[in-house]
Amino acid sequence: MTTSLSKADPSRPGVTGPVVISVDAMGGDRGPAAVVAGIEKSAEKNPDIRFIVHGPEDELRRMISRRKGLADRCDIRNAPGVVTMDDKPAQVIRQAQDTSMWSAIESVRAGEATVAVSCGNTGALMALSTLRLRKLPGVNRPAIAVLWPSRGPQGFNVILDVGADIKADATDLLQYAMMGASYARNGLGLQRPRIGLLNVGTEDHKGRPELKEAHVLIAAAAGNANAEYVGFVEGSDLMSARVDVIVTDGFTGNIALKTGEGTAKLVGDFLKDAFANSIMSKFAAVLAMTSLKRLQKRIDPRRVNGGVFLGLNGTVVKSHGSADATGVSAAIKLAFKLAQSGFQDRLAARVAQANEQAEVAQGTRQAGA
Amino acid sequence: MTTSLSKADPSRPGVTGPVVISVDAMGGDRGPAAVVAGIEKSAEKNPDIRFIVHGPEDELRRMISRRKGLADRCDIRNAPGVVTMDDKPAQVIRQAQDTSMWSAIESVRAGEATVAVSCGNTGALMALSTLRLRKLPGVNRPAIAVLWPSRGPQGFNVILDVGADIKADATDLLQYAMMGASYARNGLGLQRPRIGLLNVGTEDHKGRPELKEAHVLIAAAAGNANAEYVGFVEGSDLMSARVDVIVTDGFTGNIALKTGEGTAKLVGDFLKDAFANSIMSKFAAVLAMTSLKRLQKRIDPRRVNGGVFLGLNGTVVKSHGSADATGVSAAIKLAFKLAQSGFQDRLAARVAQANEQAEVAQGTRQAGA
Repeated sequence: MTTSLSKADPSRPGVTGPVVISVDAMGGDRGPAAVVAGIEKSAEKNPDIRFIVHGPEDELRRMISRRKGLADRCDIRNAPGVVTMDDKPAQVIRQAQDTSMWSAIESVRAGEATVAVSCGNTGALMALSTLRLRKLPGVNRPAIAVLWPSRGPQGFNVILDVGADIKADATDLLQYAMMGASYARNGLGLQRPRIGLLNVGTEDHKGRPELKEAHVLIAAAAGNANAEYVGFVEGSDLMSARVDVIVTDGFTGNIALKTGEGTAKLVGDFLKDAFANSIMSKFAAVLAMTSLKRLQKRIDPRRVNGGVFLGLNGTVVKSHGSADATGVSAAIKLAFKLAQSGFQDRLAARVAQANEQAEVAQGTRQAGA
Repeated sequence: MTTSLSKADPSRPGVTGPVVISVDAMGGDRGPAAVVAGIEKSAEKNPDIRFIVHGPEDELRRMISRRKGLADRCDIRNAPGVVTMDDKPAQVIRQAQDTSMWSAIESVRAGEATVAVSCGNTGALMALSTLRLRKLPGVNRPAIAVLWPSRGPQGFNVILDVGADIKADATDLLQYAMMGASYARNGLGLQRPRIGLLNVGTEDHKGRPELKEAHVLIAAAAGNANAEYVGFVEGSDLMSARVDVIVTDGFTGNIALKTGEGTAKLVGDFLKDAFANSIMSKFAAVLAMTSLKRLQKRIDPRRVNGGVFLGLNGTVVKSHGSADATGVSAAIKLAFKLAQSGFQDRLAARVAQANEQAEVAQGTRQAGA
């Protein structure tokens, strides 16, 4: 089973040559040191990335110049202000012009960088991204998509929305389906992603009215979008091999994501307790070290660090607030992958196509009524 | 850490002497053999239970008479019909009079048994229970509550609703809070349960309108109901030690439950893979056997088998459809515990009290307006 993000399909056009990623160095729980360490990790592994790094210039310059060869690949932009985890999005929109977060998004807006990465406040990052990058034509609600460890051959499923908006109507869910399929194609290398709609049962009559309506819309749109619609799926399918993209509203998605993370952590902690239980089990833990490390890696949230904001004129990757160097580097890797595959343009094309089809379908329905 | 369901508080009145549990022997995935085996397990452990067992009389009599001493403690009721997992609730309501499920509920309705237990179709069981037992005065939506493994000293949190109804307004959520607290008091032996309301963040401004309204209602009602309201909680708190009862609508609760179960299973399977990885790790698994079995027991869903239907004139315990003897016995144990503590009357009193208070509060608000 391969669990790394797969390489771009060489038969499809993408970006060639160096990719520029815009990185917000501030606002994470571990400060700029963890972010710069993450940049260094990525720079060492991948000669094709360059960075624009946003934050207090003097501090960043000091940190970056200390690391060999890094200064040549980083362009530092001075932004003294910091958006904190407690700042309210509405406030940030009015007062954040001097912050590293604003500046990081601005680089994508200006076309200097393809994707922005930030460890900061999610609500503020979504509000600022929406304000400055604007929504794609026809998109009502942008969404946040994450990768979820799964039993499938690629090792991950895409789930969206996990918290950009607490509401979603049938058309929003259709757009999430199209955007999620596009992300799975470019981020996971799947030719024909299978889409499922999250519900409390798999029978057609189950669930809320907007879900039944979205069920019909997605079924009609999937074929033309080079995707397959598998119908309703349940919470137990988030990690299943029978689906690649799981569509839900941001309220449900957020609860599911945090429930899954919390459960994995609980089982992990119980496992540690179990091994600390007796001398024999402690000895066993030493023997099984390699295998247990492999397990830990398999469910390590840092390895798939990065919620991707979809539905804007530009791509933004939200890293976990508590990300360390490994986590930041994973988010940068995801950003690079998406930038290199020409994801943003493909996504915009899919959304435009789905909108056209939905309008045609609606026109037909009205004409028939 | 003690993980067994705690004993009833001797200072509070409950039922004394033998407790009669009504058991639907049919409708589970493993047929009546698993149910009768579960009854036998419980009968062996607990001399204070008697059973009314519902299903095809000849078949049940054969199974029960084969087990020593069981026939004396089981009253068999002939009910040839079976509600299957695929039957639609609306259909069942009209045509299920001859089924074991209907008969099992009827014993509670007639006052012959205190609690009914069934492994059958959840939707049908809820529909039949509501039809025959009727809702408690003032309850708009009954709820299904389950126990969730947690880090708390009692080892479990209560979560409701996990799927009785896909909608819940603010008053429903208030009633869930009161019913959940009552369940935690009688099922887990907690004197003053701590209630949390599931949301996408813990700040007051987060979430849907009905959640903000319920936030105010529950805060006002908790003190008088001998409970504590800790405010909004997140998906990661379902297993936390800072809350005992988690309140949510049945759509979100169902997704969270299945996501948690699925994640625990995924991590468990990954763990098995890890131990099967090399000769060394296989050897380690043998050494750690006792500890791993302890872990498995700690997260074994069979051990806390039983969703409890709350808000009806009578208590119904829904066992997992795939329950084996251990699972059925756990569901019977829960039913016994609730019956013995006089749970049903206490619950009804709490609901009535909360309704009165809500009416007074509403009256005050209207008078003040």
